[in-house]
Amino acid sequence: MSNVVVQDVSRADPTVIDGLAACGVATVHEAQGRRGLLASHVRPIYPGARIAGSAVTISAPPGDNWMIHVAIEQLKAGDILVLAPTSPCEDGYFGDLLATSAEARGCCGLVIDAGVRDVRDLTRMRFPVWSKAIFAQGTVKNTLGSVNVPVICAGALIEPGDVIVADDDGVCVVRREEASDILREARAREAKEDVKRQRLAQGELGLDIYDMRARLAAMGLKYV
Amino acid sequence: MSNVVVQDVSRADPTVIDGLAACGVATVHEAQGRRGLLASHVRPIYPGARIAGSAVTISAPPGDNWMIHVAIEQLKAGDILVLAPTSPCEDGYFGDLLATSAEARGCCGLVIDAGVRDVRDLTRMRFPVWSKAIFAQGTVKNTLGSVNVPVICAGALIEPGDVIVADDDGVCVVRREEASDILREARAREAKEDVKRQRLAQGELGLDIYDMRARLAAMGLKYV
Amino acid sequence: MSNVVVQDVSRADPTVIDGLAACGVATVHEAQGRRGLLASHVRPIYPGARIAGSAVTISAPPGDNWMIHVAIEQLKAGDILVLAPTSPCEDGYFGDLLATSAEARGCCGLVIDAGVRDVRDLTRMRFPVWSKAIFAQGTVKNTLGSVNVPVICAGALIEPGDVIVADDDGVCVVRREEASDILREARAREAKEDVKRQRLAQGELGLDIYDMRARLAAMGLKYV
Amino acid sequence: MSNVVVQDVSRADPTVIDGLAACGVATVHEAQGRRGLLASHVRPIYPGARIAGSAVTISAPPGDNWMIHVAIEQLKAGDILVLAPTSPCEDGYFGDLLATSAEARGCCGLVIDAGVRDVRDLTRMRFPVWSKAIFAQGTVKNTLGSVNVPVICAGALIEPGDVIVADDDGVCVVRREEASDILREARAREAKEDVKRQRLAQGELGLDIYDMRARLAAMGLKYV
Amino acid sequence: MSNVVVQDVSRADPTVIDGLAACGVATVHEAQGRRGLLASHVRPIYPGARIAGSAVTISAPPGDNWMIHVAIEQLKAGDILVLAPTSPCEDGYFGDLLATSAEARGCCGLVIDAGVRDVRDLTRMRFPVWSKAIFAQGTVKNTLGSVNVPVICAGALIEPGDVIVADDDGVCVVRREEASDILREARAREAKEDVKRQRLAQGELGLDIYDMRARLAAMGLKYV
Amino acid sequence: MSNVVVQDVSRADPTVIDGLAACGVATVHEAQGRRGLLASHVRPIYPGARIAGSAVTISAPPGDNWMIHVAIEQLKAGDILVLAPTSPCEDGYFGDLLATSAEARGCCGLVIDAGVRDVRDLTRMRFPVWSKAIFAQGTVKNTLGSVNVPVICAGALIEPGDVIVADDDGVCVVRREEASDILREARAREAKEDVKRQRLAQGELGLDIYDMRARLAAMGLKYV
Repeated sequence: MSNVVVQDVSRADPTVIDGLAACGVATVHEAQGRRGLLASHVRPIYPGARIAGSAVTISAPPGDNWMIHVAIEQLKAGDILVLAPTSPCEDGYFGDLLATSAEARGCCGLVIDAGVRDVRDLTRMRFPVWSKAIFAQGTVKNTLGSVNVPVICAGALIEPGDVIVADDDGVCVVRREEASDILREARAREAKEDVKRQRLAQGELGLDIYDMRARLAAMGLKYV
Repeated sequence: MSNVVVQDVSRADPTVIDGLAACGVATVHEAQGRRGLLASHVRPIYPGARIAGSAVTISAPPGDNWMIHVAIEQLKAGDILVLAPTSPCEDGYFGDLLATSAEARGCCGLVIDAGVRDVRDLTRMRFPVWSKAIFAQGTVKNTLGSVNVPVICAGALIEPGDVIVADDDGVCVVRREEASDILREARAREAKEDVKRQRLAQGELGLDIYDMRARLAAMGLKYV
Repeated sequence: MSNVVVQDVSRADPTVIDGLAACGVATVHEAQGRRGLLASHVRPIYPGARIAGSAVTISAPPGDNWMIHVAIEQLKAGDILVLAPTSPCEDGYFGDLLATSAEARGCCGLVIDAGVRDVRDLTRMRFPVWSKAIFAQGTVKNTLGSVNVPVICAGALIEPGDVIVADDDGVCVVRREEASDILREARAREAKEDVKRQRLAQGELGLDIYDMRARLAAMGLKYV
Repeated sequence: MSNVVVQDVSRADPTVIDGLAACGVATVHEAQGRRGLLASHVRPIYPGARIAGSAVTISAPPGDNWMIHVAIEQLKAGDILVLAPTSPCEDGYFGDLLATSAEARGCCGLVIDAGVRDVRDLTRMRFPVWSKAIFAQGTVKNTLGSVNVPVICAGALIEPGDVIVADDDGVCVVRREEASDILREARAREAKEDVKRQRLAQGELGLDIYDMRARLAAMGLKYV
Repeated sequence: MSNVVVQDVSRADPTVIDGLAACGVATVHEAQGRRGLLASHVRPIYPGARIAGSAVTISAPPGDNWMIHVAIEQLKAGDILVLAPTSPCEDGYFGDLLATSAEARGCCGLVIDAGVRDVRDLTRMRFPVWSKAIFAQGTVKNTLGSVNVPVICAGALIEPGDVIVADDDGVCVVRREEASDILREARAREAKEDVKRQRLAQGELGLDIYDMRARLAAMGLKYV
Repeated sequence: MSNVVVQDVSRADPTVIDGLAACGVATVHEAQGRRGLLASHVRPIYPGARIAGSAVTISAPPGDNWMIHVAIEQLKAGDILVLAPTSPCEDGYFGDLLATSAEARGCCGLVIDAGVRDVRDLTRMRFPVWSKAIFAQGTVKNTLGSVNVPVICAGALIEPGDVIVADDDGVCVVRREEASDILREARAREAKEDVKRQRLAQGELGLDIYDMRARLAAMGLKYV
C-alpha cells in the first residue's frame, strides 16, 4: 500500500482524547499494560507540553517532506501529525511555515522520528513537537510517500486515527477502539495513586503499603 | 555480596557536604585530582539544581525497581539515592510516587544510570534527578538486588556513604573519608579562581597570568 | 600547517554579520543552497541564543585546551571561537574562567566539537556555547595545536574569518567572501516566506500555494 | 494479549521459503516494495549465512529469557526464533545450550533485538544468529512474556508464521500470505538483474542501459 | 594515587589462569555470580581468540600512550595489558611496534577501552586485542599516567594482578584472590552443562529438564 | 557549485599510489603529520583489503544513488569512488550491480559515509568497500547531486584526484600534489620502524630505545 492518501479515517471521542491527555504518558502506558510506547530518542523540543490527539500518519522517504503538505489537507481539529521516515533520517522535515499551516487546520502537534527546525519559532508559537533530532538540514519534494497508512514510528505501530498521548516523558499510542477503556483504567489508576501518594508523603513505606517484606525475605534478601 | 541490605553506613559531616554542594561539580572534580566523575550521559532532568548528599547505593537488575523500595527505608535526611543497573538499561525505574516517598524520608535527589519518568511532576516538585534517559517504560518487582553495596555507576565506583555532588555539569563522587580534605582544596581553588577571574575580566590574558609565552615558544609555536 | 598562529585574518562587514544573525540558521542554510551546516550533535547549552560572528578557529589535541589561551589573544570584538579537536573528544575544554577572558576580549560565543563545563555559570553570564557534550572532565596544557587555520568542525569546513551563525537549530558557516550575497538571498527568502506564512495562517494549503496537485497526480499519488 | 502462548500458527510453503532464502535479503526487500527490513543494528554473529524460515516470535521482558524455553517447544522444522524485548536490552539471552535445544527441535536460526553469548560455540555449530549485541551478561527466569504474538523487532512488525529472510545484509520479514507472490517477483527481478549484470560487466554504463541521460540533462545536471 | 608505577604486584597461579581461559567468559561470568563483565563495546579485533592472564593496568590520559612504554617494563610472562583512558577516547594507542615489544616480554594480549591500529599486522601476529575502536589516529607522549593502579575499564573495576578472561563474548575480570574458587565453580558448572547439553541435543525440553511447567502455570501463562 | 560533473581531474602518479597502498593507513597518516583520517565509523565490509587509488567524489542526497551512475562514467583505471551524503544516511546506496559496473571501468573500491548492500556478493567479488553501515534499504533516483567536487566525507575533506588509502585500520586521504612527498616520508618511517621492531622483538624496551627515563623522572613519575 504505497503512494496512497487514505481520506476516510475514524477518530476517537474528543472527550476521551482530552481525558487521556490529562492522565499523561506514564499513566496511560501503564493503564494499557505497558504497550504502545515510542522509543526514548523521541524527545520534546521544549518542556512542559502535554497533549493528546488523533494520528494523521505520514510515511515519507528520507530527506523528502512532500507528503507533509499532502497530510495537512487531511487534518481535522485536534489531530496530531505523525511522521515515520522509510529509513533512518534526521533531516529537518518541518519548520515554522508548516507549523503555521498545520495549526491553521487545527493540528495540535507533531511526532516525528526524524528532525525538525525553526525550533525557536515553534517554541514561541507553543506548537509542540516530539522529534528524534533538531537539525536545520533541508528536505526536497521529489518522491512520493503515503498518508494515513499504518506506520512504525520509533518502534511503535501507529494506525491512522489512533490516539497519540505526548508529554515530557515521551510519546505513547492508544488504539482508537480501546481509547475509552484505557481512559477508564488510567483514571482508576490515578485514583489509587492519589491515595498512595498521600500515605507515602506522610513517610509510610512502600515496603509496608505494598506488603513486600515477607516476599523479600522468602526470596532471600538479607539485612546486615 | 549479592541480595544484601547494608544498614550501618557512615556519612560525612553535613557541613562538609553542604560546602561541597556550594563548590559544584567542576571545582570538586579538579580539587580531587580529576577523579570520580560519572560519564557525561548522566544528565539532569531540569537545569539549575546543585546538590550534594550521602550515597545510598542500589544495585538493581535491568527493568526491576524493587530494590528502590528497600533503599528508601535506609534513607536519612540529606541522602541521595544512587542506582546502577547490573546491565545497561534505560527503563523508567523511578517516578513521582517514589520521589514523594523518598522526599518524605529526607532524600534530596537521585542519580541513576538508567531511566526515569513523570519528569513533569518531578520538575514541579523540584526533586532533582540525574539520569541516562527519560523513558516512561515501566519496571517489575520480581528479582532481588542489593542496597548499600559498592556499585559502579556510569563508570565511577561509588561506596555507600560517599558524597555525591551534582549540578548542570554532571555528577562527581567524593570518598567519604576524603570529603573534608577535598572541600578545603576546593575552596582554596575557588579563592585562586576569584582572583584570576577578576584579572581576566579586565582583559588580562591567560598567556600572561599563567606565564605561558616562553614555554609555547620553546615548544615551537609559530606566529605568522 | 601545524603549530602555527595566523594573526592576520580578514573579517566580514559587521552589519552583514548582524543581518545574518537576525535571519537565523535555517534561513541562512537554505539561502546558500544547503551548505555549511554543522552536524546535529552540536547543541546549545541553553535555549534562546541567536548570534553571528567571525570565526577564530582552534585545532586542538584531545583533552588539551592550551590553544584556547593562545586564541583568546587573537580575538576581536564580535568574534566567535570555534574549536575542533584533532580526534573525537568530549572533555570539558572551556569553563567560566575562559568565558570571562574571552568575553573581556569581545568574544560573543563558542562553537566546540567537544565538551564544556561550568554551564550554570555560562548560562548566568549569557555566554552562548554550542557543544557536543557537557562534561566536567578537565584538560591539560601539554601539547601544541594551531589557531586560525582551516578546521573541520562537526563535519563542516571552517576557515578563519568565516561567518558563524548559531541558534537553537544548530550552527551554520558562511564563507566570508560570500557573506553579503548570502545575506541578500536570505532576506529575499524571508520576504517570500512572510507572504506565504500569512496565506498559510489563513488556512490556504501548501498544495495550492505551491501548485503541487498536478505533479502529485502525475507521479501516481492516489486518494482512496 | 500478554502472557500467552499461541500454539496454532500457519507456516508458508517450505519450497517458497527456500526460494526466498536463495534470493537473499536485498532482492526480497526490493521485490516487496522496500518494506519489512529490520534496522541495521541487527547483525550476523559470523559472515556467510543465508537462511529463511517461519517466525516463532517471542516477546520477553528486559534481561529475562524464560520465554525462550517456552518458545522452543513450539518450534517446527525450519522455524526461526525471533525475540523482541519489551524495552531496549542487550543482555545475552541465548547461548550454546539453548542453541543445542533449538537445533534439536529443527530450528534454523535466531533473530534477536538484544544480545547473545557463547558466539564461539554458536559459530562452530554453524547456528546462525542476527543480534543487536554480543554480550556475556546473563538473564533471569522470573517474569512472563508471550510466544507467537505479533512483535515489533528492530522496527519491523513480525507476525508468527511470517517468513524471515536473513543474510549478511541483515534481516527482512515477508508476510506469510504474500510469500509466494514475493518469491515470484524476486525471481523476476533476479532474472532482469542477470541480464544487466552481464551488460555492466562488459563496460556498458547504467546511464545508457537505464536511459538516464536525457532526464539528467532536463533536471539541470551540468558537465564542466 | 597518580603518576605512580606499582612494581610489586601479585599474580594468580598460572594453572588457575589457564583453567579460566579454557572455561571462557560466559561460564566464568556466571560462575562468579554475574560480576566483573566489561561493557559490550569492547570487542575482539579478530574472532577466535580465547585467553586469560594477569592484569597489568594502565591509567592513561586521552590521546597519550606514553604509559604503555612504562607498563611494558612491568610485564611478566602471561600478563595482559589493560588500558583505561581517564576520559572517553578512541585514538589508536597501540599498534604493531608496541605489540612486538609486549610480546617479547611475555604479554599475551591487550584489553583497551580506547582504539588500536595496525590491526592487519596484529591479526597476522595473532596478538589478540579487545578494544572499543579501530582507529589509525596517533597519540602523543606528553602527559603522565599510572601503571598498576586500580582502574575502571569499560565499567568494570580492575586491580593489578586480577585475572582477565577474554574471548569472542567479550572480557571478564576475576579478583586474583578469588580465582581458584571461581575456577572450581566454573568447572562444576561446565560439568552440569555437559549433561544438560546431551539431553537437550536429544530433543528433551528445558521446560522439563528444569521443571518449569508448574511455575509458569502458577504465574498465569496461558496456552491458546 | 551544485549539480555539476567535473570531467577533467588530475590524478597522482600510479607508482606513487601503489607505494602508498603498500605503506598502509597508519603509516601514511603518521607520515603526513596525522592529517586526513576519516572517522572511525567507516569500516571495511571484510578484513584484509589494502588499497590506494584516486578519488572520484560524489555528493549525493540522502537515500538517492543516482549520481553513482553518473560517477561511474568518470572512472579511470585505479580510481576509488568516494560518496558523501549531504545529510547523515545509512541507506544501501551500492550493491553488486554497481560494483560490477564500477569494476568494469577499472574502479578498485568504494569509500562511503552511508550504507551498502549485497555484501556477500561484494565479498565474493573481492570488491573492497569501507562504509558506515551495511543496510539493505534501497535508494531512489530522483534528485541531482554532483560528481568530482570537493566533499567532506566522514569528517575529512576530499578533493577529486586526491589519493585514498584504505585498509583494516580505516581510510586516509592524501592531497594529490603532496602524494610523492608523503610516500617518501612514509617509506623513511617504515625503514626506521623496521630497525626498532627488531630491537623490540629482542626484548629491548621502548623506555631505553627512545630514551624516556630521564624525562619521565623529571616530570614526576614515581616507582613504588
